[in-house]
Amino acid sequence: MAYDLYYWPMIQGRGEFIRLALEEAGAEYVDVGRLPEADGGGPVAIRAFLDDTANAHPAYAPPILKDGNVIIAQTTNILGYLAPRIGLPPEGERGRGWANSLQLTISDLVVEAHDAHHPIGSALYYEDQVEEAKKRTPIFLEQRVPKYFTYFADVITRNGDSDAHLIGNAVSDADLSLFQVIAGLRYAYPVAMARIEPDYPALTALHGTVAARPNVAAYLASERRIPFNEMGIFRHYPELDG
Amino acid sequence: MAYDLYYWPMIQGRGEFIRLALEEAGAEYVDVGRLPEADGGGPVAIRAFLDDTANAHPAYAPPILKDGNVIIAQTTNILGYLAPRIGLPPEGERGRGWANSLQLTISDLVVEAHDAHHPIGSALYYEDQVEEAKKRTPIFLEQRVPKYFTYFADVITRNGDSDAHLIGNAVSDADLSLFQVIAGLRYAYPVAMARIEPDYPALTALHGTVAARPNVAAYLASERRIPFNEMGIFRHYPELDG
Repeated sequence: MAYDLYYWPMIQGRGEFIRLALEEAGAEYVDVGRLPEADGGGPVAIRAFLDDTANAHPAYAPPILKDGNVIIAQTTNILGYLAPRIGLPPEGERGRGWANSLQLTISDLVVEAHDAHHPIGSALYYEDQVEEAKKRTPIFLEQRVPKYFTYFADVITRNGDSDAHLIGNAVSDADLSLFQVIAGLRYAYPVAMARIEPDYPALTALHGTVAARPNVAAYLASERRIPFNEMGIFRHYPELDG
Repeated sequence: MAYDLYYWPMIQGRGEFIRLALEEAGAEYVDVGRLPEADGGGPVAIRAFLDDTANAHPAYAPPILKDGNVIIAQTTNILGYLAPRIGLPPEGERGRGWANSLQLTISDLVVEAHDAHHPIGSALYYEDQVEEAKKRTPIFLEQRVPKYFTYFADVITRNGDSDAHLIGNAVSDADLSLFQVIAGLRYAYPVAMARIEPDYPALTALHGTVAARPNVAAYLASERRIPFNEMGIFRHYPELDG
């Protein structure tokens, strides 16, 4: 039976980390928000599912995954549930705990990537906080991104099984998520990333390895991959790049 | 064998969510950072553990839990590992998945609580971003806290087993973490919380229920409980309260 993913259809957002895992694994899924409204899709379907009072375990926000009668929210939580079921490594409690730790750190970076352009409030327009964004973003690019990148490069270095992956010697859900963050940062900050990335060749290589996976490559080339845009987490505002 | 908790000794911080779980469960643990340096403690021990190149699974930041040869990082990840081992409900994959979802949402709120007073950069002084904090904090207090509180009150309402807990009919790690957030917000924003909390009597009741647990009460009254202060997540700056 197919998984149902409930996420906003206009953006990659946090739903993209789930989409990438499902696509790499070749798992069958319905991206409910991207169905036509006439077929029970669209943002209205996401909102209705979010507000469904029959759900004993309500979600605070999308993404939400439905697997039969199991309803599960929060990106890292969904990935921890999905990965072993769709055949993504690593296996076992120790392995999944390590993958979860990495996913949580990636998630922390994602929050900072969003707040770089929205430092005052996510419900306000960017234009209403552009001056503050111009203060936060240079700190993000000069201090925070290098700190996270140094960490992830170190994780790859310490991985005794491979110098191409965060965990073991195969593409894990953690690799997929880190790929997505690098892709997003390249979109948002082409100038800054051209300066930052050469210091982290292992991350550039990981991005390339993931992008070349047949299922990922087919997905990225398809219409299922929503383009990056200025409604999502990673936004290209030229005045913030540099 | 006792658990070793590695966390900064000057603040409650994210380590407090681990301390509360261990204390409620009556689990044996060593708060390594709070030992004298002569006994292998202090911030120097935390830094050394963080930088230990022999660890194949390095942590990005404390808190870190050591259980024999298992080293595990990230607050919600540690709680997911610890809870079933120290007897905190809920049990089973479905139960733990639900608890993890709630912990992750609490964790999102904690990030926002921190960034309310540090909207530009965590490495900058508060004094260097007080004007921006005066913009972000009212949005946090008027929009974000009520949105999270509405959600958690709804979770309690939908809990078919009890009207006093987030999950089931006993104190879970999720209850403990929500208690901590409410305590922190009361410390940081006594004026605002006196206005906000009456709309969420179930959360006030949950805070009281947790505070009255014998092990928690003994802990809160002990010197093991580091007082709230202006180095932690929840800071009392009167100019931000209201």
